Amino acid sequence: MKKLWAGRFEKETDGLVEKFTASIDFDRKLYEQDILGSMAHARMLAKTGIISKQEAAEIIRGLLEIKLEIERGQFPFTFELEDIHMHIEKRLFEKIGPVAGKLHTARSRNDQVALDLHLYVKQKISEVVGKIDKVMKVLWKLAEENRDAVMPGYTHLQRAQPVTLAVHFDAYYQMLKRDKERFYSAMKGADMMPLGACALAGTTLPIDREYTRELLGFSKMYENTMDAVSDRDFVIEFISCSAILMVHLSRMAEDLILWSTSEFDFIELDDGFATGSSIMPQKKNPDVLELIRGKAGRVFGNLMAVLALMKGLPLSYNRDMQEDKEPLFDTVDTVISCLEVLPGLLSTMKIKKENMMKAVEDSFADATYYAEYLVKKGMPFRAAHEIVGKMVSYCIKKNKKLKDLSLVELKNFSELFSEDVLGLSYNPENVKNIKAL
Amino acid sequence: MKKLWAGRFEKETDGLVEKFTASIDFDRKLYEQDILGSMAHARMLAKTGIISKQEAAEIIRGLLEIKLEIERGQFPFTFELEDIHMHIEKRLFEKIGPVAGKLHTARSRNDQVALDLHLYVKQKISEVVGKIDKVMKVLWKLAEENRDAVMPGYTHLQRAQPVTLAVHFDAYYQMLKRDKERFYSAMKGADMMPLGACALAGTTLPIDREYTRELLGFSKMYENTMDAVSDRDFVIEFISCSAILMVHLSRMAEDLILWSTSEFDFIELDDGFATGSSIMPQKKNPDVLELIRGKAGRVFGNLMAVLALMKGLPLSYNRDMQEDKEPLFDTVDTVISCLEVLPGLLSTMKIKKENMMKAVEDSFADATYYAEYLVKKGMPFRAAHEIVGKMVSYCIKKNKKLKDLSLVELKNFSELFSEDVLGLSYNPENVKNIKAL
Amino acid sequence: MKKLWAGRFEKETDGLVEKFTASIDFDRKLYEQDILGSMAHARMLAKTGIISKQEAAEIIRGLLEIKLEIERGQFPFTFELEDIHMHIEKRLFEKIGPVAGKLHTARSRNDQVALDLHLYVKQKISEVVGKIDKVMKVLWKLAEENRDAVMPGYTHLQRAQPVTLAVHFDAYYQMLKRDKERFYSAMKGADMMPLGACALAGTTLPIDREYTRELLGFSKMYENTMDAVSDRDFVIEFISCSAILMVHLSRMAEDLILWSTSEFDFIELDDGFATGSSIMPQKKNPDVLELIRGKAGRVFGNLMAVLALMKGLPLSYNRDMQEDKEPLFDTVDTVISCLEVLPGLLSTMKIKKENMMKAVEDSFADATYYAEYLVKKGMPFRAAHEIVGKMVSYCIKKNKKLKDLSLVELKNFSELFSEDVLGLSYNPENVKNIKAL
Amino acid sequence: MKKLWAGRFEKETDGLVEKFTASIDFDRKLYEQDILGSMAHARMLAKTGIISKQEAAEIIRGLLEIKLEIERGQFPFTFELEDIHMHIEKRLFEKIGPVAGKLHTARSRNDQVALDLHLYVKQKISEVVGKIDKVMKVLWKLAEENRDAVMPGYTHLQRAQPVTLAVHFDAYYQMLKRDKERFYSAMKGADMMPLGACALAGTTLPIDREYTRELLGFSKMYENTMDAVSDRDFVIEFISCSAILMVHLSRMAEDLILWSTSEFDFIELDDGFATGSSIMPQKKNPDVLELIRGKAGRVFGNLMAVLALMKGLPLSYNRDMQEDKEPLFDTVDTVISCLEVLPGLLSTMKIKKENMMKAVEDSFADATYYAEYLVKKGMPFRAAHEIVGKMVSYCIKKNKKLKDLSLVELKNFSELFSEDVLGLSYNPENVKNIKAL
Repeated sequence: MKKLWAGRFEKETDGLVEKFTASIDFDRKLYEQDILGSMAHARMLAKTGIISKQEAAEIIRGLLEIKLEIERGQFPFTFELEDIHMHIEKRLFEKIGPVAGKLHTARSRNDQVALDLHLYVKQKISEVVGKIDKVMKVLWKLAEENRDAVMPGYTHLQRAQPVTLAVHFDAYYQMLKRDKERFYSAMKGADMMPLGACALAGTTLPIDREYTRELLGFSKMYENTMDAVSDRDFVIEFISCSAILMVHLSRMAEDLILWSTSEFDFIELDDGFATGSSIMPQKKNPDVLELIRGKAGRVFGNLMAVLALMKGLPLSYNRDMQEDKEPLFDTVDTVISCLEVLPGLLSTMKIKKENMMKAVEDSFADATYYAEYLVKKGMPFRAAHEIVGKMVSYCIKKNKKLKDLSLVELKNFSELFSEDVLGLSYNPENVKNIKAL
Repeated sequence: MKKLWAGRFEKETDGLVEKFTASIDFDRKLYEQDILGSMAHARMLAKTGIISKQEAAEIIRGLLEIKLEIERGQFPFTFELEDIHMHIEKRLFEKIGPVAGKLHTARSRNDQVALDLHLYVKQKISEVVGKIDKVMKVLWKLAEENRDAVMPGYTHLQRAQPVTLAVHFDAYYQMLKRDKERFYSAMKGADMMPLGACALAGTTLPIDREYTRELLGFSKMYENTMDAVSDRDFVIEFISCSAILMVHLSRMAEDLILWSTSEFDFIELDDGFATGSSIMPQKKNPDVLELIRGKAGRVFGNLMAVLALMKGLPLSYNRDMQEDKEPLFDTVDTVISCLEVLPGLLSTMKIKKENMMKAVEDSFADATYYAEYLVKKGMPFRAAHEIVGKMVSYCIKKNKKLKDLSLVELKNFSELFSEDVLGLSYNPENVKNIKAL
Repeated sequence: MKKLWAGRFEKETDGLVEKFTASIDFDRKLYEQDILGSMAHARMLAKTGIISKQEAAEIIRGLLEIKLEIERGQFPFTFELEDIHMHIEKRLFEKIGPVAGKLHTARSRNDQVALDLHLYVKQKISEVVGKIDKVMKVLWKLAEENRDAVMPGYTHLQRAQPVTLAVHFDAYYQMLKRDKERFYSAMKGADMMPLGACALAGTTLPIDREYTRELLGFSKMYENTMDAVSDRDFVIEFISCSAILMVHLSRMAEDLILWSTSEFDFIELDDGFATGSSIMPQKKNPDVLELIRGKAGRVFGNLMAVLALMKGLPLSYNRDMQEDKEPLFDTVDTVISCLEVLPGLLSTMKIKKENMMKAVEDSFADATYYAEYLVKKGMPFRAAHEIVGKMVSYCIKKNKKLKDLSLVELKNFSELFSEDVLGLSYNPENVKNIKAL
Repeated sequence: MKKLWAGRFEKETDGLVEKFTASIDFDRKLYEQDILGSMAHARMLAKTGIISKQEAAEIIRGLLEIKLEIERGQFPFTFELEDIHMHIEKRLFEKIGPVAGKLHTARSRNDQVALDLHLYVKQKISEVVGKIDKVMKVLWKLAEENRDAVMPGYTHLQRAQPVTLAVHFDAYYQMLKRDKERFYSAMKGADMMPLGACALAGTTLPIDREYTRELLGFSKMYENTMDAVSDRDFVIEFISCSAILMVHLSRMAEDLILWSTSEFDFIELDDGFATGSSIMPQKKNPDVLELIRGKAGRVFGNLMAVLALMKGLPLSYNRDMQEDKEPLFDTVDTVISCLEVLPGLLSTMKIKKENMMKAVEDSFADATYYAEYLVKKGMPFRAAHEIVGKMVSYCIKKNKKLKDLSLVELKNFSELFSEDVLGLSYNPENVKNIKAL
């Protein structure tokens, strides 16, 4: 098929090449941004007198019709028209005739696709932040409700010291709070208008970028035309923020998966948020959480893809950059779907506080209390640490817990133990009153 | 919707969860492998008497009908049925009634999906190797045709020594040859039958795995049932081979992109394999090659995704592993499309031998000949190297080439130069006769 | 060797395990941060009465001596002592006796190493930003000096439109400006004090975190103790910013490598910043730039390493996290060395303006001017694009440039061409005056 | 400092550049390979008459002395001499005078470093395979010893069906067996001699590559000189095999970490292979296993680094490729240290068979037996699955296990249950006798 850019070409594009280079399968996702950008561009062309007001009006009317067609599923897509830009331009021509050809004045696909991507990323940052907020609200509520749920805190997945379940939920909350701030920072790079850069070198036509910027609601615009069409920092940064977010979600998922094993048995997922087995009737599987954990890898892969893509590309635009879209879109879909499924899962799961407390009681998680007791009596921490270590060793052999030790037994380890040690143990109040929590 | 595995569940699965966990959007790609596997499984169940011959016949007839429906686009897909396995089982039930429920005897989705993936990867290895072969044939032909095309060989992208264009094409040929062998090695891991492992622990039913293995044409089967459902080595290995292949294709693409610049001007892509610009009428862009270069990053990303996915997963099957499919499928599509577009591009491009030769003549690519000349006269290489370095320096200042130097000038650098040096220069014959080429 | 933590252990650690788990080889880099943190901690312990003022003074004196020993290379390192924390604590014991054991009160290696890393990253962000500034200054100066250096701007590595060399240097400048802002944003995550979190659950001792925070100059502190010891966001974020920075440096490197080929011949690197060949005396290789380009991959690798490392780790501290240090340190070293070598290379390279101008004159880079000329005369851009495309095609056949076309020839393509077209061409003034540059 | 390649250079290399480009810090690791290669090269030069027998003898004597110096730590390294090749050449000159300059005849650093890397990778493959063997032996022994240790097999980390511990150890064994084969396949690419390719284009001197190949014990040699110096497939392949190996080790580590929690309590690590806490006296941490799990990420990072490095590099040698060494060396060290520490850890850990059996008894892991029982009585599997699902649901409410159900209760679910069901349960014999295990 004869292309719009084919003035100097004598042969038609090979069929395999058409398929290979076409991006319409995925960049159709940008139709809304593309039409929005074109409408603003048409208004600017009219304002500066490059086209007439009437021409602009016709163009805008045509574009709005096309938007409707796409939304109603009536728009004909074909890979021969390469990308969303060409699809819309061609259709515009069918609707309003040669004046459609004026829309591409003082614009290239290079700055056009950059514009679409900027608009898209801006919108998706807002959306992701909104979804993070919803998960944070649930975590906050869970933290509030579980301030009295004492459980073992783990390091190295070994029971370490008593904490509350609230501290766990709050820890995830803190992570997501940082994610939110990170996405906000990423907004800075997305919120820049590339239009007017044209292919790479601007234009000799008297355009008014400031006007277009205002129409499209960008805070800033690129100062350098080559930079404007070559820059994909904002894409990498979005995926990079998403990768860290997914690290957090995968860690929370891991904790919840562990807690819903028969061995930990701290929580039970709601039937609506678990799945069964096609062969083992008794199974209740935390598939949602496993998928979240697994999807982290996918976002890392997308990040790697775009970094490797951009490495060592000469200025300015290179077609390689078409490959930035699928990793970006996939990251957006992945992150949003994970964030959407979590509130329901978190707020319906059953929390088994009694099992948590039992796990504390079965453990030596209170050992640090004894060490700090000795420190308060004047012993250097290192010495206290060693003594309590021996007490633990003794208890294991005797099959006792620390709190079962009599004062006589305790004094065998250190003369500093006195009656006041006997009240020493974790309880929700103690755990909540720990400094620096 | 009530799931087939939901015997012990009291609530329906949440709608968001259904969407989140569904894999039907991508695993429908495996329908052929899935049906093939099920037919073999049914035959085995009949052979061992677990089901009757007639039941097996009904099941197989139903499966064949389903295959046709899918191929004709008449099969109803819905994410509520999760995956391709459930879709086919449900449809089978609609077709043949409760006996459909016997197909899942002595089988779990865990070994079923592993089987499908093994069959898929086996087939795709053959396909990829076939496509590599076609590119190799073109490269071989190009090497044959360009044995007389002397051009500068580059190191550090600086003209180094004269070589022929044939050596370049042969170098890519060698790379692809290694790729082919690597994919063959990867076949070993793919060519193993997991069926019979069931969920993870085999079955108490008297199955005959050997029979199923034969029916499906596998060379080996997994000896360990937990390994059978947990192993994704063959997926990683396929993507890993693909990543190296893409490194090669990206390097060839880079060379061709450089050669088709105005500055190098060694080749011109055919109109059918190049694209134009939407704003600059004079442009002829090597988009296909740029996309190939860019797509390498994508395959690296897929590799990273699956490695990160599998890291630290406990035995045996975990739902995270559902995330192995999209990176695999995307890798297959990417690699195949790149290999398909290359033969046409390579065999239609115009090679400008005269420009290549001119580049050799304009350079000091013959410097090493002079150094080796001195070595043959008995000078240690290091000394010869230094002397010719000074000759080059002298030539740059005088704006001369080495072959323009008179014997008098040469003797100023070393007494070892004598008349026979004057014939010394690259020419197709010399270049072709270099040892060890 | 008997460990400080070995109270409950009955056997000594296996020799292989000692070597395997030891981090002293790399974490000794943190000695300064570790000692700084310990001094602040000791002062806080004294202020709150947990230890006496005199004990604190002894501890601080000992720590200062140790700092000097390390700086003078007199400090004995051995992998049996695992890490920098244990080394310093052990040495302190040798110097001041059992009171050394009090330093570890209300502190764990978990919050200690987190503190060291935070201090380290804060310092390195400042250092990196300073180095970026220096490169930016050189780029700014080069842009100023090359406002009249007209050259082809490239898209798809094909000559596209005339731009100035200044625009290129400014484009890199803009990239680095964004990098700087990104590193500043990353400071927020680094500038948080984890101390007081102890192992994961704070302490029952009456510490004063606010005081320690002030002493160490942190703006904020972690509100959640489990988060404080589990968080490595700030490490990932630093490497992530570095990865984007390396993308930019690799792109600049690629341009400069291309420009210093014989084919482009736009610049020549200074002898001091190029290297030669061990076999080809004429070579002058841009090794520094190639290494910068290559080192981008290394930083991507570090980013992937840390992301994969942190994925799916349960709360709170896990020993896996020891593996965060080498990728971080390597990233710091890589980024700093690349930034340090660039100012000299950039400011000494010779710029060949005449070759650049010649490349513009040899090309059809002015084609867009003709298209925009027709647009100004009222033709829709698409029509203008097609006409100029045909003009280019005609010129190629006739071996002419666009500006060589007579008015008669031009009018064959469009009646809109009139006398004023003849003055049309790029020149530094035109190029500089392009809108939106 | 004046370089050996600096004949045409008029200025000395900048100090920063010397440091930046120097590789001696890491490539000194290759000294043995480098000297071995040089000795073979010298013998070949003598055999072909390019140098005299006596010269070769002197060179070899000098090289052997240098080898001794390095092994004794008496060799002076300085980054000004760039790399190991230059160090050895320079030192040879100091030892035997100008004849040292003859060693570099018909050789470039490009083929020399390729040779060193090939020799290195060949040797390391053998070493890694040897270490894998040792771990496999321990796993085999553990499988043998634990055929009677019935435990829950897990899918989704939920208890699924009873298996033996032996099956687990055998599963890891199978993984390592595949790794071994993969490393053997990788040997093919490593076992190729690049020498004779010189810089990229071979040589006009009458060398005898076949002789050198034999001396160095390579099976094949590169047929294409440009390929010989440009190829790093064998490096990527080694790291790629290592990445898969690390996936396996990380999965085994994860299982063992889980099993050594208080919650699972299936194993206890030996004191010699665990570590304690600096603050919590009761802790016994599986640090070794956590580090193994974490180090997987590091190897993935190395793989990504080298892939990104090689992507899009034009032929033939580019300095970027110097960056292949550190990821390779780091991978070798990582893999070997992990493999070395495992045999001791595995063979000393205490296995708590009674806890494993208890976990089976506490679970519904026998549910599949009941479903298969019904299948044997003629019920379609899907129907049987649903019935047993309801039985499990009933048991959970009644706080019973399946085997506690009376025949009356069972018959409420299906009339197919009869007396023979009562003997139904897992036991070591049953588990061992499962088909297809």
